[in-house]
Amino acid sequence: MAVSRLITEVITKLKQGRMVVLYDGDEREGEADLVFHASFATPENIRRLRKDAGGLICLSLDSGFAKRLELPFYADILAQSKYSVKKMECKKAAYGDKPAFAIPVNHKKVYTGITDIDRSLTIKKMAELAQMKADGEGEAKSVHNKFVKDFYSPGHVFLLIGRGIENRHGHTELTLELARLAGMSGMMVLCEMLGEGNALSKEDARGYAKKNGFAFIEGKELF
Amino acid sequence: MAVSRLITEVITKLKQGRMVVLYDGDEREGEADLVFHASFATPENIRRLRKDAGGLICLSLDSGFAKRLELPFYADILAQSKYSVKKMECKKAAYGDKPAFAIPVNHKKVYTGITDIDRSLTIKKMAELAQMKADGEGEAKSVHNKFVKDFYSPGHVFLLIGRGIENRHGHTELTLELARLAGMSGMMVLCEMLGEGNALSKEDARGYAKKNGFAFIEGKELF
Repeated sequence: MAVSRLITEVITKLKQGRMVVLYDGDEREGEADLVFHASFATPENIRRLRKDAGGLICLSLDSGFAKRLELPFYADILAQSKYSVKKMECKKAAYGDKPAFAIPVNHKKVYTGITDIDRSLTIKKMAELAQMKADGEGEAKSVHNKFVKDFYSPGHVFLLIGRGIENRHGHTELTLELARLAGMSGMMVLCEMLGEGNALSKEDARGYAKKNGFAFIEGKELF
Repeated sequence: MAVSRLITEVITKLKQGRMVVLYDGDEREGEADLVFHASFATPENIRRLRKDAGGLICLSLDSGFAKRLELPFYADILAQSKYSVKKMECKKAAYGDKPAFAIPVNHKKVYTGITDIDRSLTIKKMAELAQMKADGEGEAKSVHNKFVKDFYSPGHVFLLIGRGIENRHGHTELTLELARLAGMSGMMVLCEMLGEGNALSKEDARGYAKKNGFAFIEGKELF
């Protein structure tokens, strides 16, 4: 795929630590997420997500990194449990896909885990983990060990696992495709943009992006 | 415990469907939550929680109702799983308690699950479930059956299970104690109030309550 001018703009902004408004598609959730690369997490931009977007603050991880962490999908943990609520496992949401949720985590240095400072810390520490070398088997194991030693669950940052843009066109995969195109590690922060009652409309999301100098991109540009 | 004038005011407001600002205590999380009874959930007050409070929108359930639902704690599901991340189970958060999280759910009639309309629907349907009679064993079973049939997980409303005010003084137990004193079903909506970077201070939470005509109460009034 030739990289369009729009994608070049998005990549440039992501590398500068700027936010991007990412709309999945009219035929899917019909939802815009406010997204940025995990390495740029600060209390200020976490605050902006909760103030301006309003959804859940999540962290998408590419499947390679999730594998190094030995991170399963939440739905699998639930479905394989001994509890009768395992029957509640979501196999397919109303918009047509399996959910991307893994487990929610906090870094052990947080206090409650929910404040801007705490969520930002958890995300920054996850981004640092992604920077650890994993050339050999021993190093992959040490990334896993650091993950289970330094973080706990349940926490307040919702980890998502990408299934690859060729398999699923959710915000999880779209954000990771942006990271890949930008040559950055596969870990992005995302939060659903909500309007009054419903998801923020595509036009309002575009208007928000324009007003704030953020790039606006639709999923279809990426697959 | 004699019911104070403050508690009488709080009970009256909760019965009217009003919100209450509930501060746990300086020695615990040092955090105020914006709370109301689940039966009064609307898209408008869910919107207020995300705009004015900013934390996770959760639903506390008393242990009796959780038992009828056969609802386990998330930490137990994780700890008993076959995955290596089970070592991440949070046994005690920095503020001293085990977490109250059960599983996150959506009602099956939602679309994405995260919008004000969707979260309000999920909560209203949970509140209806709590109204179902459960005098006999068969009826308790039918509440469970309706729960696993009509809701799925992972979703966007975070269920919490109370351990009883005599055992734990978290927002979960404090909200449920308020519901009990008000003679209402044991199911309350709660969301952490966040300030810039940190939790909203006690004084700012009190100011917010005053400005909006909400009652303000501290945990120590309840145990």
